[in-house]
Amino acid sequence: MSASSETPIDETLSAGDEASKAVSKKAAKKEAAKLEKLRRRQEAAAEAAISSLNVEDDPLSANYGDVPLSDLQSKEAKDVANWTQVGSLTGELKDKYVILRGRIQTIRAVAKKMAFLVVREKGFTVQCVVSEQPELVSRQMVKYVVGLSRESIVDVEGVVSVPNVAIKGATQQVEIQVRKVYCISKAMPSLPINIEDAARSEAEIEKALQAGEQLVRVNQDTRLNYRVLDMRTPANQGIFRIQCQVGTIFRQFLLSEGFVEIHTPKLIGGSSEGGASVFRLDYKGQPACLAQSPQLHKQMSICGDFGRVFEIGPVFRAEDSFTHRHLCEFTGLDVEMEIKTHYYEVMDIVDRLFVSMFDSMNQNCKKELEAIDKQYPFEPLKYLRNTLRLTFEEGIQMLKDAGVEIDPLGDLNTEAERKLGRLVLEKYGTEFYILHRYPLSVRPFYTMPCHDNPTYSNSFDVFIRGEEIISGAQRVHVPEFLAERAQACGIDVKTIETYIDSFRYGAPPHGGFGVGLERVVMLFCGLNNIRKTSLFPRDPQRIAP
Amino acid sequence: MSASSETPIDETLSAGDEASKAVSKKAAKKEAAKLEKLRRRQEAAAEAAISSLNVEDDPLSANYGDVPLSDLQSKEAKDVANWTQVGSLTGELKDKYVILRGRIQTIRAVAKKMAFLVVREKGFTVQCVVSEQPELVSRQMVKYVVGLSRESIVDVEGVVSVPNVAIKGATQQVEIQVRKVYCISKAMPSLPINIEDAARSEAEIEKALQAGEQLVRVNQDTRLNYRVLDMRTPANQGIFRIQCQVGTIFRQFLLSEGFVEIHTPKLIGGSSEGGASVFRLDYKGQPACLAQSPQLHKQMSICGDFGRVFEIGPVFRAEDSFTHRHLCEFTGLDVEMEIKTHYYEVMDIVDRLFVSMFDSMNQNCKKELEAIDKQYPFEPLKYLRNTLRLTFEEGIQMLKDAGVEIDPLGDLNTEAERKLGRLVLEKYGTEFYILHRYPLSVRPFYTMPCHDNPTYSNSFDVFIRGEEIISGAQRVHVPEFLAERAQACGIDVKTIETYIDSFRYGAPPHGGFGVGLERVVMLFCGLNNIRKTSLFPRDPQRIAP
Repeated sequence: MSASSETPIDETLSAGDEASKAVSKKAAKKEAAKLEKLRRRQEAAAEAAISSLNVEDDPLSANYGDVPLSDLQSKEAKDVANWTQVGSLTGELKDKYVILRGRIQTIRAVAKKMAFLVVREKGFTVQCVVSEQPELVSRQMVKYVVGLSRESIVDVEGVVSVPNVAIKGATQQVEIQVRKVYCISKAMPSLPINIEDAARSEAEIEKALQAGEQLVRVNQDTRLNYRVLDMRTPANQGIFRIQCQVGTIFRQFLLSEGFVEIHTPKLIGGSSEGGASVFRLDYKGQPACLAQSPQLHKQMSICGDFGRVFEIGPVFRAEDSFTHRHLCEFTGLDVEMEIKTHYYEVMDIVDRLFVSMFDSMNQNCKKELEAIDKQYPFEPLKYLRNTLRLTFEEGIQMLKDAGVEIDPLGDLNTEAERKLGRLVLEKYGTEFYILHRYPLSVRPFYTMPCHDNPTYSNSFDVFIRGEEIISGAQRVHVPEFLAERAQACGIDVKTIETYIDSFRYGAPPHGGFGVGLERVVMLFCGLNNIRKTSLFPRDPQRIAP
Repeated sequence: MSASSETPIDETLSAGDEASKAVSKKAAKKEAAKLEKLRRRQEAAAEAAISSLNVEDDPLSANYGDVPLSDLQSKEAKDVANWTQVGSLTGELKDKYVILRGRIQTIRAVAKKMAFLVVREKGFTVQCVVSEQPELVSRQMVKYVVGLSRESIVDVEGVVSVPNVAIKGATQQVEIQVRKVYCISKAMPSLPINIEDAARSEAEIEKALQAGEQLVRVNQDTRLNYRVLDMRTPANQGIFRIQCQVGTIFRQFLLSEGFVEIHTPKLIGGSSEGGASVFRLDYKGQPACLAQSPQLHKQMSICGDFGRVFEIGPVFRAEDSFTHRHLCEFTGLDVEMEIKTHYYEVMDIVDRLFVSMFDSMNQNCKKELEAIDKQYPFEPLKYLRNTLRLTFEEGIQMLKDAGVEIDPLGDLNTEAERKLGRLVLEKYGTEFYILHRYPLSVRPFYTMPCHDNPTYSNSFDVFIRGEEIISGAQRVHVPEFLAERAQACGIDVKTIETYIDSFRYGAPPHGGFGVGLERVVMLFCGLNNIRKTSLFPRDPQRIAP
């Protein structure tokens, strides 16, 4: 199908459809073939004619062209208000002269006298018509526009018109009758991935395949290699705007509850919380590593009397995990707070924080969620007004009742977590719940054991759609006991001496939790890979771009 | 002066003052000495008596004591609302029975029957009176309280009373007539630094010295070694709450202007922006380093069509700088945005963002600023409603006119920056201004040269009190030119290939800036050392705690 054999406005196609009703299918086919031949001949002739057109000969040549670099080096400060945002183009601007800046999403030539551009800005698109007109638009200008490459950035000037049929190929229901086009930045003619390929859903690919058409499927690795292009798809624009929203709600909620935002160091001496999965480095001759979490320092800030703190920052895990939900670097949302009597106080914060976060996303990110759903269909998250809380023992019992063989004092593996998620959904109608009182042996050394049974601990995990997103607990605030627990867990107490010392100057009972930002977005949106919710993901095999 | 020779309420001291008027100085001295002797004898006797007191013999023993750990392991969930915050204690609560949790700031015994506790919570303090009373408060309880160590955490229960004189030793103008005291967490009896020493201003030390008294001066390094204690001073509580406020305003302002918050990786292949000052590490067998800034990735996000982005996160500099204003790890506030025509658009954001930030701090952080000012006196920042903008050439001219010898195409050194700051303050009455059009040779390779003179660049620095806090510029968005500039600056283009490639798919003209969070707080508050505004600072010699 050549670009010129169709016009982007649907009315023409519809008119064609109606006409075809009058003639037999066969006759129509013959007629079409004849027309097609004619059209090709005309095209060839036009192409020959057009290729001999010279910009130099065009008295209207000032109306189009590539903007020289020197004009883009802050030569003249113009009012930003001169530009109209594509997203704000409506019928109210009919007959107004506007200037837009955006990317060329598609270019379609119609014969040699006309071209349709779809221009995209921040996810909004508008159809622009470049049509030869005496004294206004030259044939050379049409030629220039047709020669532009997709994804190039252009300034388009023209008059807003309102067609009397719906425009399907663009978000905005107006057209621009183009008077001037200037190219600000040229994309290379052949892109490593095309945005429309990258934006395609699995369903579309399947549907086309059934119709005998093989469409390009861009795999995850290729997407990440050309992340800058991949980011431009509507789904990705939505995903990272939602990520921003999660961080914003997290902060706003906690600030309103009297928490203070802190920034703890990522470069730390010794070996963080122990274990093999740390990135080590040389710090001016001293052995150092990257913090696996702000755990120790956020607790120290509680000892420093900030009462309630939170942090948003990178955490580093040198684990060799090649799963859909592990990254070597991700964004941690961390909370730590004094408690008066019980770790339920921490769970109360989790409960209210996340319910308000989910509410806010559903209310304020409709457009983004729709864009994601279009490429990666998902069901909205089911959650209760008051978050369900089950003990670990209750969880184990549910699994046992369902016939799952399981160690009642071991950690839940991914499979068991998923199964429990399904059971909880069936029984309680929620995909978001808290599981608490984990066995002490599966939790870090700084976890407070239960008062009535030291086999269990004052800890909890939180799940979305059967996958863990939060880990939290009351902490041990007694230095001697903390040292004892560290030793019992095989940690060299010397390497965490300053941390343990922090509790010798009077330490309030406290608890907290950590959340993986990328996981929250992935699971809220029902995505299948955490690499989709990290802008530039880092896994054991990827450290670029 | 023994603790028992004074009562903390000023009325008693005043009464003594008045009585002394009646007798001659000499006689008063004699009388005082006599009384002191008597008091000491009584004290010794009381001490002997009290030391024989046993808790076991006390029918009121349930009213005080150390809380066993098991009671602090989330044994029973009590309503947090049972506790009254120290900061909300006012005369309106007169005769009410309240429960408080806080730290013991000071303990003063009066004879053997009475003790005054000052209890601190989140910077607020209240005086608590433990006075022997039949059926209510035993002498053993007074003994117990006197034996508690400073900085220990206690639950205090008692009745609110309102003394008819001002209380100078505490922020709240009520007293608690204590009925019960339970120690939640004991501080070690002898602390490495005392909070009152750490909270002392230089002026107080000087004043005492002139009166012949040597007070403890806690030096910066000792503070940092025991940061958890140091954090508890009113000034430090203020500093880090202001730091939180700066981050909050930064975010709120940018979100309201359509910016998206992003998180870029800190682990990157190659060598970041080049130069020697990077921390290198091994990433699963590949050479990697810690990002010196989110520069490359935030620009790539602009190429990915996010339009306007910002990031708050750690940046790493392995520089051997031992100055008052350099750290090896600090919190970067980074901004990047598309521009239509001019880098002034970026400067406009800086201007409005910072003026609104300063306004907000002056309005909403009065208490915090006062606390800082008390220990580290400073003048409020002078700034204009519309931020002053000077070109680099104008700055050089001002320095020259003032007799400073200076290379017109070199970078300004610290001394020249300070001098210019003073000249600008004299001439324009502002301590906050923008200097733009820096020589190209002193800026990074990705800086856009000026359209009219490639010796200069479309770049700017921003100063507070004569010190640089922001660096910004229009960036080169043309890939071939970018590669050329990188090469000219001695950077191996191969190591930044994915970055340069990002501009081959169509790149809008753009610019941005980076701010050091710790510097903003330091300079807004007129502090003399950046280590004061970093919770756990990292410099070439410090990687702990």
